[in-house]
Formats: sequence, structure tokens, C-alpha cells
Amino acid sequence: MEKTEGEIIRAKLEADQSQSQISHLALDIGGSLIKLVYFSKNNGCSDDDDGNNKHLVLQGRLHFAKFETCKINDCIEFIRSKKLHLGGVRLHDAPASDKILVKATGGGAYKFADLVKEKLGIIVEKEDEMDCLVAGANFLLKAVHQEAFTYMDGQKEFVHVDINDLYPYLLVNIGSGVSMIKVDGDGKFERISGTSVGGGTFWGLGRLLTKCKSFDELLELSHQGNNRVIDMLVGDIYGGVDYSKIGLLSTAIASSFGKAISDNKELEDYKTEDVARSLLRLISNNIGQIAYLNALQFGLKRIFFAGFFIRGHAYTMDTISVGVHFWSKGEAKAMFLRHEGFLGSLGAFMSYDKHSLDDLSTHQLVQRFPVSGTNAGEKICCPLVGDLDDNDSIECGVYAA
Amino acid sequence: MEKTEGEIIRAKLEADQSQSQISHLALDIGGSLIKLVYFSKNNGCSDDDDGNNKHLVLQGRLHFAKFETCKINDCIEFIRSKKLHLGGVRLHDAPASDKILVKATGGGAYKFADLVKEKLGIIVEKEDEMDCLVAGANFLLKAVHQEAFTYMDGQKEFVHVDINDLYPYLLVNIGSGVSMIKVDGDGKFERISGTSVGGGTFWGLGRLLTKCKSFDELLELSHQGNNRVIDMLVGDIYGGVDYSKIGLLSTAIASSFGKAISDNKELEDYKTEDVARSLLRLISNNIGQIAYLNALQFGLKRIFFAGFFIRGHAYTMDTISVGVHFWSKGEAKAMFLRHEGFLGSLGAFMSYDKHSLDDLSTHQLVQRFPVSGTNAGEKICCPLVGDLDDNDSIECGVYAA
Repeated sequence: MEKTEGEIIRAKLEADQSQSQISHLALDIGGSLIKLVYFSKNNGCSDDDDGNNKHLVLQGRLHFAKFETCKINDCIEFIRSKKLHLGGVRLHDAPASDKILVKATGGGAYKFADLVKEKLGIIVEKEDEMDCLVAGANFLLKAVHQEAFTYMDGQKEFVHVDINDLYPYLLVNIGSGVSMIKVDGDGKFERISGTSVGGGTFWGLGRLLTKCKSFDELLELSHQGNNRVIDMLVGDIYGGVDYSKIGLLSTAIASSFGKAISDNKELEDYKTEDVARSLLRLISNNIGQIAYLNALQFGLKRIFFAGFFIRGHAYTMDTISVGVHFWSKGEAKAMFLRHEGFLGSLGAFMSYDKHSLDDLSTHQLVQRFPVSGTNAGEKICCPLVGDLDDNDSIECGVYAA
Repeated sequence: MEKTEGEIIRAKLEADQSQSQISHLALDIGGSLIKLVYFSKNNGCSDDDDGNNKHLVLQGRLHFAKFETCKINDCIEFIRSKKLHLGGVRLHDAPASDKILVKATGGGAYKFADLVKEKLGIIVEKEDEMDCLVAGANFLLKAVHQEAFTYMDGQKEFVHVDINDLYPYLLVNIGSGVSMIKVDGDGKFERISGTSVGGGTFWGLGRLLTKCKSFDELLELSHQGNNRVIDMLVGDIYGGVDYSKIGLLSTAIASSFGKAISDNKELEDYKTEDVARSLLRLISNNIGQIAYLNALQFGLKRIFFAGFFIRGHAYTMDTISVGVHFWSKGEAKAMFLRHEGFLGSLGAFMSYDKHSLDDLSTHQLVQRFPVSGTNAGEKICCPLVGDLDDNDSIECGVYAA
């Protein structure tokens, strides 16, 4: 009796998994950070029947990790120690690691392909950055329960995403630089704008100004600061009064860092936390404004902000939200994603599916968890409720139709 | 025989002028700079007949000067030494200086009104900032020959302004902060946007980063720098190649100041000129982009950039122009104004006309110079050909209809 297709795939997968519990490593190598996603199996396989087809599902967890791009050697060491590089796709069932393909996106997939090959002996299969960002965002929005939320005045509120009314939306990915992508469907999108004033600007300028040792230290510092010490407010120009005729409150920032022109102070005379705060405010505000203007141009009401710049930082999200709210006069809404930093790597991970490689031609990443009340009929949702740590993981299945 | 209205005005003016050759001082007190405009008579009066009415014209020169707002006392001393404060409008022919009104705009007109009264004994008559900017821009565009120009790739090209097809246009005034105003006619306008990332940000952040002593020193420094030392380019992320799929050249800036995240350098390890250059590029680019997005939203093809940030600086104008060109795919055009910094003060100057003060109810500032070929039928143009120095002046007449 011949084996069914599912049985063949299962056999191949189990053979593959026997070498390691890890499979499907995917990388997003950006200008500042390397983001990793990898899957680890925990319960072997199971079958799933949706009424039309029998599906093979590998139960396990998706893991997330990040490294600074300038410390790529640490990342390579991490991959080697966990044998993640053996979890790629084998070409023609070749046993040698130099026939293993690993999916990667971001500019570093080009820049570091040779280094990765030399150090790990694996081949980097490059995936387009925008393709991956969009695939990752669509997956998160459609498959992960309570993925999107709004944040304003210290209040976090989950947004119910109606997957039948998701498109079009504006995806604003804030990495070192910022990409703004109009998304119209799966694989249907256009990069409509961007700005070079992004996370790399915050961290680069912030480092020079404050001598902070890490991005997170700078972010933490900004949390304690007061931007009014250095920013020139409308009230500073107008002698404490509003410029009410055009709707500018005296507390509005007229000129970021503008007070530094007349204070007769050196950099050292300012508190680093105040400097960090003004800088964060400048950049968040600016991104919010440019995003809103682009959303307006294309009639997009939903703006999702992602990228590792945000890091779930309350003040950053608040500033972006207030910016979008202010400029759109309440018409547009800023939303954030819990797995904000991993869009690209998730997209690269999912791209294993698209490409007709021998032993993984029909795989698909799914979230298979208790159906949420609002999504009856959809079986893709996720049980996470807490915040995602950098090295957090989520339960999921790898799906073979 | 009764005197004509013109004769009455002429008599009043000559009485007024007898005390001083200076009249019509107007101030624009911004967050960073105080801009002064004042008129000095040189040839007494003359008559002018346009076929409908006889006009009385005081021939003379308009003078321009500026001071840093934090050195307002120097400005007050300058006004006193030149007796400019006696050139305001006298209330009810009162001889005492405390009955003299001087027009002023900008936030400082509010903030420093008491100080000016105390030190000079004159009353500051506040004029709305946006009203003045627009009045000043309209005056310059309509009345001054070769006022507007484009600047790209080092080429300056004067733009013929057809005053019958001037509106609508976008006025971007880059002071400490930036105002973006849609202008539909004389006195018809709306402030549609703005950004806090403006001249005060360049000078404030630049001062902290470079220890420069003046805005102009910082600007000069930026002229010599190379932004690629600190900015993260697309090629830095992509290993020297373009990200051609989305049209980003390897030389495009991916992240302003982004290289500073990984260079392992302190601020002191960078050349101040490179820092200044990156900062100038960041701010000019950003203003160009936000201006373009606003122009697009309102269907405005003409964008005029003004404000003292620009200072006729080639690289600043080039960056703004390239930004507008890039983002609009060549659809929109950035234009600059030779008297860029004095829009507000010129507008305040002209506001002497609007207000029914006893002895100056019908005055109007005009440029009365040889009719330019292209503007036949219009008698308002200006003979200036060189660049405007900070303390330059232009010939003109004060017009009493």
C-alpha cells in the first residue's frame, strides 16, 4: 500500500527532526539588530482535519532572539551552540551542512552571506525585506490573538482585528531607518515612503549625546527625563501664553532642542535623561507625523507601527499615538504589535513555505490554539497574554497540508 | 482752497519725518532671532499718477537687520542709537515717546512687550505672526523682481512669478520651528502644518554636538563635512549594493546618524564638520519631505521656503530641493526667496497700512523701479541683483494712495 502524501512528509520531517529538535531558523539582519526566529518541536506530530484535508502538524514553540548587528559573531556563536543552523532546509537530502539553506532577510542577508557561510557552513537564502515585513505583519494580525493594541495616556487597549476587513493598512516599520508600506493583501503591497530619522538616529545621536552604553539604557534614561528643559515650547516664545489663533498650546513643542540655542550651557550641563527624552520625543513625533501624512494621502485609517525601535516602550508609543491623533485631528489611529520587532524574521520563516524545496514544499506556520470568542470559525489565535520578552517564545504548530 | 487728501498726508508725513529720517520700524521677534525692518527717506516725497489716482510716494530705502533673541538688549541699544523707535506711529500727535506705537510680530512681541516699553518707552503693537508671514511673502513675490529662485545641483535659477497665477502656494517658514501655510490670496491663508524640527533644532543640537559659537559657524562647518561618515547608508546595510527593488540607491541615507551606533566612537572622535553636515542633511531633508507631503495633500505645486534657517546656504537649499524632487518624483518644485528671513518683519511693516491710525491710514509699501520686461503693466519690481546681506537694504517707496 502506497503512503499518502501526508505520511511521506511526516516521515521526512521526522527524519529531519531526529537530528535536532530545532527546525526552520530564519534571520532578519538589519542595520542595527539581528532578529532570529526558530521553531522547536515538543510533542512530535499530530494530525488535524479541517473537513476538507487532513493536515500534519508539528507541535512546538516559536522562539525569538536578537543580537546587535555589530556583534554578529555572538549571534553566530549562539546559532552554533544551539545547532540552529542545522535546522535549515537540506538540499537533496545532503548530509553535509554546506548544503543547508537558511532563510534570511534585511540588508545583512546580502552583506553577511559570505561570513555566515564561512563560519557556519550554511547557505543564506535571501528573501526580500519588504516581502518579509508584510508577510510577518499579515501573519501576526491574522493569526495571533491580541496582537494589535492602541496605547494612549498610559492605557493599553487590545484591538480586535477583523481579518475580513484588514486591508488596506499602513505598516510603519521602524528599524534603523523607517519604511512605510501600504498593504493591500497577502503579498500585495507598496513601499510608499520612509524616513531616515528612525531607531538608528535615536540610538546613534543618543549615544553621542549621552554616552549611554546600550539602546535600552538610553530608552530607560529617556523615561526619567523632562523634554521641556531643552525643547523650546510655544510658551517659551510667546511669554507663557498659547498661540491660540492657530491652536498651538503654550506647552506644544515649537522647536526640538531649541532651548539649547540660548541657554549658554554645554552638553555636559544638561542631564542626560532630559537630552534622551527630547530626542525620543523628536523622533517619535516626527515618525507619527510622516506616517499620518502618508496614511492621509492614500486614505488609510489604520496605521500599524512595528520595528525594534518601539520595544514596547510606553513613552514612545504615547508620543507616536499623540502625534497621529494630533495631526489627524482624531481621524487616524496608531496601533502597535506585540511582536513588533520580529516581522521580518517571521516573514523569512514563513518563506520556507513558498519555495519549492524538496522536503518542505507544503509547510505553513499556523497558530493553533483555543478559538477566541470573537473569531469563531477561525482557528488561528494565540494564548499569549503577557508582554513578549526579547527571548520569549510562543506556542504554535508547523502545518503540512 | 482746501488741501487735497494727498497734501494733508504729505504734510503730516513731512512733519513726522522732520524729527528723523527713519520711519516705520517693524520687528519680528522669534524664538531665535529678532528681525528688524525700517525705512529711511532719502529724497523727500514725489507724486505718482497711475491714471486713476494721484499717489504720494516717499522715496527711500528699506533696511534689514537681525539680532539673536537672547541678545535682545543689543537690539534695543541698536534701536536707541539709530533712534528707530521714534519712527513708529504717534498716537494723537503726542510728542512723548510713550505714545509711539511700533509694530511687532512673532512670539517675542508678546513676551518682550513690557521690556521694550520699559527700555524704549514705546508701545508694541502686536501683529499676528501668520498674517505677517503671508503679507511679507505676498509682497516679496508680487513686488520684488527676481525674488524667487530654484536651487539644485549648485545652480541658482530665478523664477518668473506670474502674479496672476501665484495662488495657491505653500509657504514653508523655517524659523526655530517650522510653519507650513497654504496661501490662497492676500490675507487668505491657513496654517496647515508644521514641525518642531527646524532651525532651532539645527542650532540647538548642533551647538551641543560641536561646541560651535554661532549658527553661521555651524553652517560653515557643515559646508566642509561629509555626512557619510556618520549616516548609515543603504549600502552600509546591504553590503555596498543598492536596494534596487524599491528604488533605493546604495548612497541613500537609510538612517541619519545610524553609523554612530556601531562605530565604537565617542562624540569627540568624529570631526565636527561631519556631525554638522549630517545634522543639516537630516533637518533639511525632513522639512523637504513634510513640506512635500503637505503640498501633495492640498494639490499645491509651488512650495516657497523661507525663514532665517536657510540663510542662502547652498547645501541647505540643495538638500531641501533634492528632498522635494525625490519625494514628489519631480512633480513639485522647491523655491527660495532672497529676502527669506524678513517675511514676518516685512509683514509687520506693511501692517501700518491696515490699521486706521491717525496719521498713516493710507500708507502702503511699494517697490517702484524700472518695469521689468516680463512684468509689463506691473510697476512693481526691484533692481537688486546681488545677494542680500544681513544688513542690506533695498530701494523702495512708501506709498500714500
